[in-house]
Amino acid sequence: MNFEITRDSLLDGLNDVMKAISQKVANPILTGVKIAVEDKGMTMTGSDSDITICTFIPSEKDGEQIINVKQTGSIILQAKMFNEIVRKLPTNEVTIVVENGTHAHISSGKSEFHLIGSNADDYPILPSVKDDHSFSLPADLLKSVIRETVFAVSQAETRPILTGVHWETVDDKLICVATDSHRLAKREITPEVMSEIPFSVVIPGKSLQELNKILADNSNLIEIVIADQQILFKTANVQFYSRLLEGNYPDTSRLIPAEHKTSVTVNGKQLLQAIDRASLLARDERNNIVRFSANEGNIIEITSNSPEIGKVEESIEAIEVVGEDLKISFSAKYMMDALKAIEGQNIVIQFTGAMRPFILKAVDSEAILQLILPVRTF
Amino acid sequence: MNFEITRDSLLDGLNDVMKAISQKVANPILTGVKIAVEDKGMTMTGSDSDITICTFIPSEKDGEQIINVKQTGSIILQAKMFNEIVRKLPTNEVTIVVENGTHAHISSGKSEFHLIGSNADDYPILPSVKDDHSFSLPADLLKSVIRETVFAVSQAETRPILTGVHWETVDDKLICVATDSHRLAKREITPEVMSEIPFSVVIPGKSLQELNKILADNSNLIEIVIADQQILFKTANVQFYSRLLEGNYPDTSRLIPAEHKTSVTVNGKQLLQAIDRASLLARDERNNIVRFSANEGNIIEITSNSPEIGKVEESIEAIEVVGEDLKISFSAKYMMDALKAIEGQNIVIQFTGAMRPFILKAVDSEAILQLILPVRTF
Repeated sequence: MNFEITRDSLLDGLNDVMKAISQKVANPILTGVKIAVEDKGMTMTGSDSDITICTFIPSEKDGEQIINVKQTGSIILQAKMFNEIVRKLPTNEVTIVVENGTHAHISSGKSEFHLIGSNADDYPILPSVKDDHSFSLPADLLKSVIRETVFAVSQAETRPILTGVHWETVDDKLICVATDSHRLAKREITPEVMSEIPFSVVIPGKSLQELNKILADNSNLIEIVIADQQILFKTANVQFYSRLLEGNYPDTSRLIPAEHKTSVTVNGKQLLQAIDRASLLARDERNNIVRFSANEGNIIEITSNSPEIGKVEESIEAIEVVGEDLKISFSAKYMMDALKAIEGQNIVIQFTGAMRPFILKAVDSEAILQLILPVRTF
Repeated sequence: MNFEITRDSLLDGLNDVMKAISQKVANPILTGVKIAVEDKGMTMTGSDSDITICTFIPSEKDGEQIINVKQTGSIILQAKMFNEIVRKLPTNEVTIVVENGTHAHISSGKSEFHLIGSNADDYPILPSVKDDHSFSLPADLLKSVIRETVFAVSQAETRPILTGVHWETVDDKLICVATDSHRLAKREITPEVMSEIPFSVVIPGKSLQELNKILADNSNLIEIVIADQQILFKTANVQFYSRLLEGNYPDTSRLIPAEHKTSVTVNGKQLLQAIDRASLLARDERNNIVRFSANEGNIIEITSNSPEIGKVEESIEAIEVVGEDLKISFSAKYMMDALKAIEGQNIVIQFTGAMRPFILKAVDSEAILQLILPVRTF
């Protein structure tokens, strides 16, 4: 292997690949990045066996030469070390030469690094994913869907299936649900081009969080390919593989109440800030619980009380309160997570009494639904 | 106590005071901030018993009213909680009312906080520092002096005196020295107005680091007052007290070699970057040691070698190499610290052989001197 490349394009590619690489892996070969150079460009692969990321740097882009390939080849280099070296190289021109498949020479300006790597044949084989079972979403929409659901996955491994987000097709819709059994986040979308074969998969929350970091905030289409045990997200130059969680996701549709007794319409940002303040005095006490009361005078009161520290009283003028007066207690954290997911708009909260789950939606859209279980304190 | 104040000025003051407050203190009262309001303004005090910071917010500034004092008084409030509350208040107008010296009501917009505090009489009394033993330095010069020396203090408590920086007057000069016994940093300045009484004190490195964070980067004069066991730094609205270390600082003057055999003049930034790269492969091996060689061809070579990972070779064209050829090994970290302290200019390194301490200076100034002990490897 022997090629010249710019440090900046190498860094761009490494930035993405590094997100899949962990120092805590059972197979030490996975602390490395696999580098393969062909005439058309360079591919780097990183994996922690749950997530695998491949980035491709083309030899030529928009008529400009980015890589000058003198000899094709491949190697595995210690990823953390290689990344730090590239980051500190003195000039933008980098030459990488590999001898015997394991000895890399990286030179730039008057710096010369000799790194001992491993043979590329030792790298695990990429999961095979068939292309015939796919659909597409714009990157920014995919990012929203992730952001609006992934926070609600379970952090506990007691029910592993709940650490993922359930993606299911229902007719021409994709329904994404996450729950940790104390709260639930649901997002519905109607992709322009939907998978012809219906599917129901559970994607690890951690994979979606890493994917979210890689996706650009633009409307470029991301192709999504679903196979038996893998899901693949494809951008122009990045392939992001994640394993799927095995097992059946619980039926969550019956959790969502169909009717309500009190409906509160309020500015989401005002409510978020008031809950945030109220939670300051609740932080270490009783699992961060705040009390919420609403009445037909359209005044919402949020209070929290911590005998040794003090108490806080917040009041907000609601846009509308319809139905029975209500007093309820809930986790400030869950409420803030849900309000952040709906983000900045006017929202409706529908209650069915102090001990029943309640739901939050945007005033003008049914696409996002957040559900929270209350806590008994009154 | 009853007063109105703007959230922004309260936050400015808290920002400084919080730097002295730690959750790890033997006396729990010191996790609080003492607030005292008089007609002329508000004083906040924070302390971890090593450092004490007082900030003053005047009632009126440049003809504008900042505090409306309705009733004077004082209280101690849980500092971390008070700081978070103030940070999140909904409006810039804040009213604070204290009842019975221990119950504070903080209100802003439609938020109302009730905080249980402690009686201000329980707060430790400030160290008394006489004003007759003082001198002044511009803030930016004081910041430089700290930055150029404090990194070299010892991190180990085996010789506590070495965890501080030695400040000593010699004639009309102030000489500041720090050493951890492997390297030494020395800075000389000639203050415009010097203390009339000579002094020799050792200031804890940690105190100077905190002071550095509080000082603005301008030429405003900072008054420095020295007493038996305390040093006080005064800005317009902040008083920063630090205890002094007890004991005699070792005589370091005899460590500094008076003559040399090899003198290397080189661009400091180029050398810093080359050492930084060379240290990448040395990081976990043999205490981060790099090898350095210079010869009369004006070529400097820096290498590092780690049998299992690889090696790196850097070469730099020196401005001048005078004297014997030299091969020497040293800690990359110490060298980088020293080069950062001298910062960006052309520097001279004077060697007296591979096993003797060597010194670094700027080409055009004797004010800063950095000394490093080599390591035996050749």
